[in-house]
Amino acid sequence: MNFRLIFKILGYILLVEAACLLLPVGISLWYCETVWRSFAMIALLCAVPGFCLSRLRTGGRDQMQGRDGYMAVAMAWLGLSATGALPYVVSGAIPNYVDALFETVSGLTTTGASILTEVEHLPRGILFWRSETQWMGGMGVLVMFLALMPRLGDGAVHLMRAESPGPIKSKLVPKVGQTAKILYGIYVGLTLGETIALRIAGMGWFDAVNHAFTTIATGGFSVRNGSIASYNSPAVVWIVTCFTFLAGVNFALLYGALRGHWRQTLRSEELRLYTAIAVISTGLVCLNLCVQTGIPLGQSVTDASFQVVTIMTTTGYATRDFALWPSFSRILLAMLMFMGACAGSTAGGVKVSRLLIHWKSLRRELSRIVHPRHLSVITMDGEVVNESIVASCHSFLAAYLLVLMAGALVVSWDNLGFQESFVASLTCIGNVGPGLGALGPASNFSALSFLSKLVLALEMLMGRLELLPLLVLLNPATWRER
Amino acid sequence: MNFRLIFKILGYILLVEAACLLLPVGISLWYCETVWRSFAMIALLCAVPGFCLSRLRTGGRDQMQGRDGYMAVAMAWLGLSATGALPYVVSGAIPNYVDALFETVSGLTTTGASILTEVEHLPRGILFWRSETQWMGGMGVLVMFLALMPRLGDGAVHLMRAESPGPIKSKLVPKVGQTAKILYGIYVGLTLGETIALRIAGMGWFDAVNHAFTTIATGGFSVRNGSIASYNSPAVVWIVTCFTFLAGVNFALLYGALRGHWRQTLRSEELRLYTAIAVISTGLVCLNLCVQTGIPLGQSVTDASFQVVTIMTTTGYATRDFALWPSFSRILLAMLMFMGACAGSTAGGVKVSRLLIHWKSLRRELSRIVHPRHLSVITMDGEVVNESIVASCHSFLAAYLLVLMAGALVVSWDNLGFQESFVASLTCIGNVGPGLGALGPASNFSALSFLSKLVLALEMLMGRLELLPLLVLLNPATWRER
Repeated sequence: MNFRLIFKILGYILLVEAACLLLPVGISLWYCETVWRSFAMIALLCAVPGFCLSRLRTGGRDQMQGRDGYMAVAMAWLGLSATGALPYVVSGAIPNYVDALFETVSGLTTTGASILTEVEHLPRGILFWRSETQWMGGMGVLVMFLALMPRLGDGAVHLMRAESPGPIKSKLVPKVGQTAKILYGIYVGLTLGETIALRIAGMGWFDAVNHAFTTIATGGFSVRNGSIASYNSPAVVWIVTCFTFLAGVNFALLYGALRGHWRQTLRSEELRLYTAIAVISTGLVCLNLCVQTGIPLGQSVTDASFQVVTIMTTTGYATRDFALWPSFSRILLAMLMFMGACAGSTAGGVKVSRLLIHWKSLRRELSRIVHPRHLSVITMDGEVVNESIVASCHSFLAAYLLVLMAGALVVSWDNLGFQESFVASLTCIGNVGPGLGALGPASNFSALSFLSKLVLALEMLMGRLELLPLLVLLNPATWRER
Repeated sequence: MNFRLIFKILGYILLVEAACLLLPVGISLWYCETVWRSFAMIALLCAVPGFCLSRLRTGGRDQMQGRDGYMAVAMAWLGLSATGALPYVVSGAIPNYVDALFETVSGLTTTGASILTEVEHLPRGILFWRSETQWMGGMGVLVMFLALMPRLGDGAVHLMRAESPGPIKSKLVPKVGQTAKILYGIYVGLTLGETIALRIAGMGWFDAVNHAFTTIATGGFSVRNGSIASYNSPAVVWIVTCFTFLAGVNFALLYGALRGHWRQTLRSEELRLYTAIAVISTGLVCLNLCVQTGIPLGQSVTDASFQVVTIMTTTGYATRDFALWPSFSRILLAMLMFMGACAGSTAGGVKVSRLLIHWKSLRRELSRIVHPRHLSVITMDGEVVNESIVASCHSFLAAYLLVLMAGALVVSWDNLGFQESFVASLTCIGNVGPGLGALGPASNFSALSFLSKLVLALEMLMGRLELLPLLVLLNPATWRER
């Protein structure tokens, strides 16, 4: 393990964070809030050690290995979470550090589960920082670092691989730095587009920017207590639905579409399955709401499509308290929480492309029984999927279930009910946000014990980084075999 | 596909069933119940087509392939379920065919979920048939056929493989017929042992035989409304606990122990993990009950150990209404329903050995990140596990989850609640029996819709046969590529 290089990267990440903290300083000053001092102080607190670490000499050992990438990503995210919580505590917005940590991790991982019962009374600087953490975590802080400072050489690809979600990791263009720039370019473009659309639909600038941040990051934090429902505007709901859906699409496909490769984009198996699942689920929820609750069709189409898209992309906004919907809809939403959206997007969950690989692998297993001597490979969009990727998809699923169940078990000690405990774990590892029952969209996570909050925060990090970085960090064998 | 051979086997299976139906005829006559006529009629109804099919000429094509084995097993189980339900309908004990089918499948697959609200008023012949279906399905009807008529040649191994649970299928002795005989020998031995133990503990002969049948098959049907609790005897509870635990052990290990290979048996990784999970889970449930419900320690040890063992081995007896236990215990029990016990036992669920393979495969994945060029194999008890077995374990998990979620979704349309729907699917695919909430041990499955009952019955069959036989049958590609 190349720890000098890892700490050097950690230093850069702290500098990136310090820079990010300057934005809420500006917002607070603009709105004449005293909270700017907390942000400035924490920015300084990050910048000083960040600067020192970034000056570390690696003694010529600049080459990064896969394991260094995982370790750097794991440590960077833990560091960001620990320091990102400080503004909440110092400003007094969230006095307890564990609560602040939960809120920060929920932000960075784009989960959107909150311990705040009331947000509208908070200073705008704090609200902006809350949304900004989601925007930072959405595309990834290390990807941001690579986009800003693309000097890391070939090894940078390991950082990108370790932070970006999905089973198959490909660079859009040969250079990693360029890839990071393109990704952030699309990300910024989408955010700007949604901000303007929301402004036109009647939202104020501050609200529009915040909601654009948390939509494109598929985060789900809102600056209003009533979330998207508080604007009482169908236009806003449909704008958010469309941009959330877009944010759940693989950014590589969006890039392809931007370059005019429409046909290739529309032929993507993952995109097709993602769209099919969204449409079919919307239809089923709609049917269920019409039949079992008597909500009129028009209303149920809006509600169902919004809720299906927001849950499937693991954003987690709510316009209705879906915790009160019939069991069928709730179970379907829980399944969507598990699935997630496309790989290479800002969404969480297991990802549609992994489900596709599982499905194809199962079909291969069945055809092997009928034709035992028939050898076959798994393909995706016409390209052969390496067997090591298939194997890692399978291990991912097993590990995901393990973490999911362990988390549910810990949370259940708070005696919250079966549904609540299970879905709390599911919503956190999937980076969705709201749970069901007492942890549903109309409520929040403040009532949980500190242990549950810490475990759920760990699950969020595990879900966002797709398990491996943190498992490598926590695996005793990694440390033993230095 | 060798359909002549498959139908010939089907014929033999019907003959085996007819023979099995003679037992309840005897029981009914002994207790002077008129129900003997129904059983005799159905026995004849099975024997005639059975005899005709068994005379089918295979035209020299006696060699069985893997796919023929899966197909034969799938069709045999569907046939057994369809005909096994007839005595309930004809005798009037369960007038509705769908209900009777649910009860029969629940019996044959050793699930133990019931649609009967009251069993004590039923004729003893019917009660005995109910228990006997579990005993038949526990070790497997095709294995019984192989033990009785070991003339099928080398291809018989495919039948055994398709019906026996577990990822790694090994014959105990070179001959399949001999292996089947040994397995049934141990099975009968355990059943006799428990019958005598229960009789000594004060149970009547009829009750003792029935409970021994359903314990060793890890089924869970009882001839009393109050199940094991109705005997009010700690001795009975502990006898059942011990035999249930034994029935969850790989029968190959029991055979090894019988032959004096104690050391090898005790070193089995699966047995160790199985025991560890049982002990740790008992400890946790015990702690949870003491802390959160105030049940005294002595009582909670008995309750916890009984309930953990009976759920983990997917038997499903209840001495307490564990649906009323705190969330932690319920979530833990649901996890045990998912896990199941050892491969090669009569238990259901995913099986401990598969979990071990998943765990080892995950560790290999992690060590690959630290040492990318390090090649390693997965071993179990010192022997290398073939990569195709690892791959099929992985596919199994994915398919299991798929069926589990699809089942939960269908059941949830009955609007039973999140916990009920999810655990109903879990308990049926895992062949456990009781669910939670409104489908808990104090209640039953009678209130469900016919669609839900049929889907759950299909899940039970899928769980018992470990998915592949039915998936091969249902896969359009199997039929297309004849």
